[in-house]
Amino acid sequence: MTLRIGVIGTGAIGEDHIRRITNTLSGAKIVAVTDVNVEQAKAVIKNQKLDAKLYESGHGLIQAKEVDVILVTSWGPTHEEFVLAAIAAGKPVFCEKPLATTAEGCARIVESEVKHGKRLVQVGFMRRYDKGYYALKDVVTAGKIGEPLIVHCAHRNPVVGDNYTTDMAITDTMIHEIDVLRWLLDDDYVSVQVVYPRKTQKASSHLRDPQIILIETAKGIRVDVEVFVNCQFGYDIQCEVVGETGIARLPEPANVLMRSEAKRSVEILTDWKKRFIESYDIELQGFIDAVNQGQPNGPSAWDGYAAAVTADACVKAQQTGEIVPVTMKQRPAFYNK
Amino acid sequence: MTLRIGVIGTGAIGEDHIRRITNTLSGAKIVAVTDVNVEQAKAVIKNQKLDAKLYESGHGLIQAKEVDVILVTSWGPTHEEFVLAAIAAGKPVFCEKPLATTAEGCARIVESEVKHGKRLVQVGFMRRYDKGYYALKDVVTAGKIGEPLIVHCAHRNPVVGDNYTTDMAITDTMIHEIDVLRWLLDDDYVSVQVVYPRKTQKASSHLRDPQIILIETAKGIRVDVEVFVNCQFGYDIQCEVVGETGIARLPEPANVLMRSEAKRSVEILTDWKKRFIESYDIELQGFIDAVNQGQPNGPSAWDGYAAAVTADACVKAQQTGEIVPVTMKQRPAFYNK
Amino acid sequence: MTLRIGVIGTGAIGEDHIRRITNTLSGAKIVAVTDVNVEQAKAVIKNQKLDAKLYESGHGLIQAKEVDVILVTSWGPTHEEFVLAAIAAGKPVFCEKPLATTAEGCARIVESEVKHGKRLVQVGFMRRYDKGYYALKDVVTAGKIGEPLIVHCAHRNPVVGDNYTTDMAITDTMIHEIDVLRWLLDDDYVSVQVVYPRKTQKASSHLRDPQIILIETAKGIRVDVEVFVNCQFGYDIQCEVVGETGIARLPEPANVLMRSEAKRSVEILTDWKKRFIESYDIELQGFIDAVNQGQPNGPSAWDGYAAAVTADACVKAQQTGEIVPVTMKQRPAFYNK
Amino acid sequence: MTLRIGVIGTGAIGEDHIRRITNTLSGAKIVAVTDVNVEQAKAVIKNQKLDAKLYESGHGLIQAKEVDVILVTSWGPTHEEFVLAAIAAGKPVFCEKPLATTAEGCARIVESEVKHGKRLVQVGFMRRYDKGYYALKDVVTAGKIGEPLIVHCAHRNPVVGDNYTTDMAITDTMIHEIDVLRWLLDDDYVSVQVVYPRKTQKASSHLRDPQIILIETAKGIRVDVEVFVNCQFGYDIQCEVVGETGIARLPEPANVLMRSEAKRSVEILTDWKKRFIESYDIELQGFIDAVNQGQPNGPSAWDGYAAAVTADACVKAQQTGEIVPVTMKQRPAFYNK
Repeated sequence: MTLRIGVIGTGAIGEDHIRRITNTLSGAKIVAVTDVNVEQAKAVIKNQKLDAKLYESGHGLIQAKEVDVILVTSWGPTHEEFVLAAIAAGKPVFCEKPLATTAEGCARIVESEVKHGKRLVQVGFMRRYDKGYYALKDVVTAGKIGEPLIVHCAHRNPVVGDNYTTDMAITDTMIHEIDVLRWLLDDDYVSVQVVYPRKTQKASSHLRDPQIILIETAKGIRVDVEVFVNCQFGYDIQCEVVGETGIARLPEPANVLMRSEAKRSVEILTDWKKRFIESYDIELQGFIDAVNQGQPNGPSAWDGYAAAVTADACVKAQQTGEIVPVTMKQRPAFYNK
Repeated sequence: MTLRIGVIGTGAIGEDHIRRITNTLSGAKIVAVTDVNVEQAKAVIKNQKLDAKLYESGHGLIQAKEVDVILVTSWGPTHEEFVLAAIAAGKPVFCEKPLATTAEGCARIVESEVKHGKRLVQVGFMRRYDKGYYALKDVVTAGKIGEPLIVHCAHRNPVVGDNYTTDMAITDTMIHEIDVLRWLLDDDYVSVQVVYPRKTQKASSHLRDPQIILIETAKGIRVDVEVFVNCQFGYDIQCEVVGETGIARLPEPANVLMRSEAKRSVEILTDWKKRFIESYDIELQGFIDAVNQGQPNGPSAWDGYAAAVTADACVKAQQTGEIVPVTMKQRPAFYNK
Repeated sequence: MTLRIGVIGTGAIGEDHIRRITNTLSGAKIVAVTDVNVEQAKAVIKNQKLDAKLYESGHGLIQAKEVDVILVTSWGPTHEEFVLAAIAAGKPVFCEKPLATTAEGCARIVESEVKHGKRLVQVGFMRRYDKGYYALKDVVTAGKIGEPLIVHCAHRNPVVGDNYTTDMAITDTMIHEIDVLRWLLDDDYVSVQVVYPRKTQKASSHLRDPQIILIETAKGIRVDVEVFVNCQFGYDIQCEVVGETGIARLPEPANVLMRSEAKRSVEILTDWKKRFIESYDIELQGFIDAVNQGQPNGPSAWDGYAAAVTADACVKAQQTGEIVPVTMKQRPAFYNK
Repeated sequence: MTLRIGVIGTGAIGEDHIRRITNTLSGAKIVAVTDVNVEQAKAVIKNQKLDAKLYESGHGLIQAKEVDVILVTSWGPTHEEFVLAAIAAGKPVFCEKPLATTAEGCARIVESEVKHGKRLVQVGFMRRYDKGYYALKDVVTAGKIGEPLIVHCAHRNPVVGDNYTTDMAITDTMIHEIDVLRWLLDDDYVSVQVVYPRKTQKASSHLRDPQIILIETAKGIRVDVEVFVNCQFGYDIQCEVVGETGIARLPEPANVLMRSEAKRSVEILTDWKKRFIESYDIELQGFIDAVNQGQPNGPSAWDGYAAAVTADACVKAQQTGEIVPVTMKQRPAFYNK
């Protein structure tokens, strides 16, 4: 069966998903689009050569009979209402992060989905679909390093604009580690702490950069994440899991080994978009396949909620310098595997 | 437009391509299949849930109105006649290697295609679609190592069966290097020599293993290829291009770096099918897209001919111990880019 | 001139230094030895074929006319008195770590040396003489990564005995990082914190293992050190300096790259004695050469004091879970370079 | 016992060995020097602060009573006569390569030493003392890769002067591989072939560069050596042994791993003198220790002869393009281990 997808939000990420579904993936097609900027939506229909209907509003699109599945790629603050509407309509919905801009908003979605009685929502945490993380989880789950005890991470970005603020190191940047490490370790967080190293002179005057976020999990695993968004040299994602009998490290992206100019070297990506580009394909194909077989099986509304609660605690830890507890509601049995 | 593909030969590679086109790729569907083993073809239709017609013969399938494009994945000795028939029918055809079992057969296909006046044929040399080789070619073409002078290669396989013969090191194994290096270097071969190192005790009594094949190109580049099909330790493909100002090496597949049992280690694949698995997707999607835009742009009938002539020279060099010239016909202007 | 060295303490490390000075290094010879265990001292004289006088006490040896320089390799609690006696005698002294068992003891040595008016004391912190750390310091000092902001370290050991206690992770193990990082960064410490990850099941019931020690320097650099003394897999020392424009990492020891059994692997040492074995040669040759040219130039009494104060703060941080300030006396100008 | 060494030839390598023996190594001292350039010899005595007698001729120095051991570091064409004179005087002699400028000259030394009845001669092939090659030999000898079948080598140098001629690629450059591979494999050579890849534009008009030398050993092992003396990017020595069950590769020199400017990189040395600098220390200390214990145990006169015969065959192979046999005399039992 070919899934008929309606897309709310045809900005950069929206158009990219449209292109992906249309030209690269199998089993789905775009039948409806909408955007607050109607001209932009029209342009996307034209550029991507879509045979799709243009809707005036996300709510209209969600209700449309010819739309089986919703893709929410609109502005963050609008996510919650569209996801809730999709649930109300009983339609599977893939929502780019954040699921909602507040933990409370995420909790409302969780509640609504639980009430509906069946999974409909998948959140766009694409790192779980990266082959490197997947291989790392395989190694950990297979017990090849014994029980995990410590995780050392780094999330480095060459440079950010002046509008990037200290809390965005959590909500925009480390949010990916927050989700992927919960999945990798199959664990929950209990507390967080933030320490500020010496500040780089390359950062805006208002921005604390780099930062180190220290996390404790329910199992007692300690995670440290270096977030450094003006590291200059490249987009560099590191993750090393220290276990009782060994250590496993996220693979570096494969690249040509050069010998030249008195160096053995391998290029580091500078554009974050290229680092996980394959993951987006795998993520959306996985969503399409899972929906075709019954229901989504990727990052859930509960995962979106957990990320939001953890991010809130990290931001508080940034502001207070204290060790801040991560306090989540009881997980509905609905989300147990 | 969705390409309607007819598949001749539903064995392992045939079924794999059918699955790929049906579940993973975009822009094509399987509408017809045939196989000498009718029951097997029926089983594939069922297993892959195809909405496809079963044909009694490849020739019937090629003629069928609902078939736009032919995929030849039958037994090697049948390739030539089906490709010639597809050309006669004016239909694009993707043919797994070998294009034909003799250089003369390949030449007949070339002649036929040239007469037809437009490219229809693509040969299944998938290594050109490997991201590693692609990145390597990028580096070489961009002049980052200056003019290439030497290429060191290795094609290592853990173990082969007793039916693997000395000439298969060329025709089944090194045939991939023969094609991909012509493409990588944008060059042609002028002579080949084979030397036999000390034989491994792990090989069958009748098999010379390992072998080293020495190749000279028209530009004077020297290529050495170690072919070692009972190397025990893994499936290991190496390619290092030595240029005037630097050296570039084919990336190792990305994998988790482990520290355990007194070793830093990265797993080596042992199954060749996994090594280039992504390439098959990219290769076939590329074929589909190119045909949709006019004509195939991958490895051509001429490339298939060049590989066959080179392989013949290598086998003669195996048998004689001599430096054997690689003598090709004049390349029709048709195949110039 | 050949330095005439008297050795106090002929246990394992003492005998090793004696062998080194006698058979490997240039410019010194052993002329006197003493040990609480007289028979053992006699055995060393015999085994190492020394032409050396046996003294009944360290103090007698220090006073001996034929002894130019003192090497203190006796039991830790005796170091302070012998170093003080050597200073009183105006003789250069190389003292294995710890300089004294308390920060106060170290301070007394500092005071005594300052009073003497010229450097006499060198402490056996050999890591500064490791070629890897040396190369790393070169890179940092040359500004190749900009100003250092963060240092990530690990000190991993395969297994420890049941007598290894939680505080020894600081005083016996991390003490090396404490010294070498002060030297590497040319900085002082201002506070420390210890967090305990999930405990490995491989450790004794009384031992917290692994531990993470977080350090803040006067310049604001943040250091994290994972100390994991039952990591099972090997003796593994990591140090990565994150700077404003790049990152530099301590080299792994060079070793043969293997391809075997489906792995690319490099052996990790399991015996700590081999990891820095060359450093001992370089350290002692450096001491001999420097003394021959006037005075020691390696780790000073002040460095020994700084390490002791920092270790005390870390142990307090282990016990309290608090962020503990590192409070040092004012550095005498005597120790400025 | 302190060996009393007389040095014939105080040029660059001679002075370097003098400095080494005087300031770094243990168990020997320089007591006599001579050079065709008397002023230069005087300058070395002064610069290295030697307590050494200046001799007018090498022969006088060899006869001198106070001289126990001879070090020959004079101009190559004089080596043979001085080594023969040392043997005649019954004194151990360390001779820098070449042992003699012709295979016949080497054979005369071998004959003379055999007649003398005890080993006196060691040739300065220092690569055997490199820790990397030593570790590689350990792995091979321990059977960790099964029986060796193939060896892939490269000897790359950034740039050479206009006076460097095509045959020097053998006699000055690959001579090191010729010796170290015989030792590594414990094997002899039976034939050699040279092929010339496309020539780099960076080489002098008269110089064939790069070259590939193909060697067959008595056990049937095939060796290929890429010699590329204008490779621009660095001094780069590679050696990979392919065995029946695995592959072992010479370690790269340890160096700081950098992340900067969109690259992960490790510096490659550009100065060959630094690449094996430690080996010279180990080599000479080994010679001193062995002589002190009876007789030299490093590369023998026979090894010098074998290298000369092999080099001659390679030069002939360069000139003829043929596969040239390597024909050696019968090895005197004297040189069996």
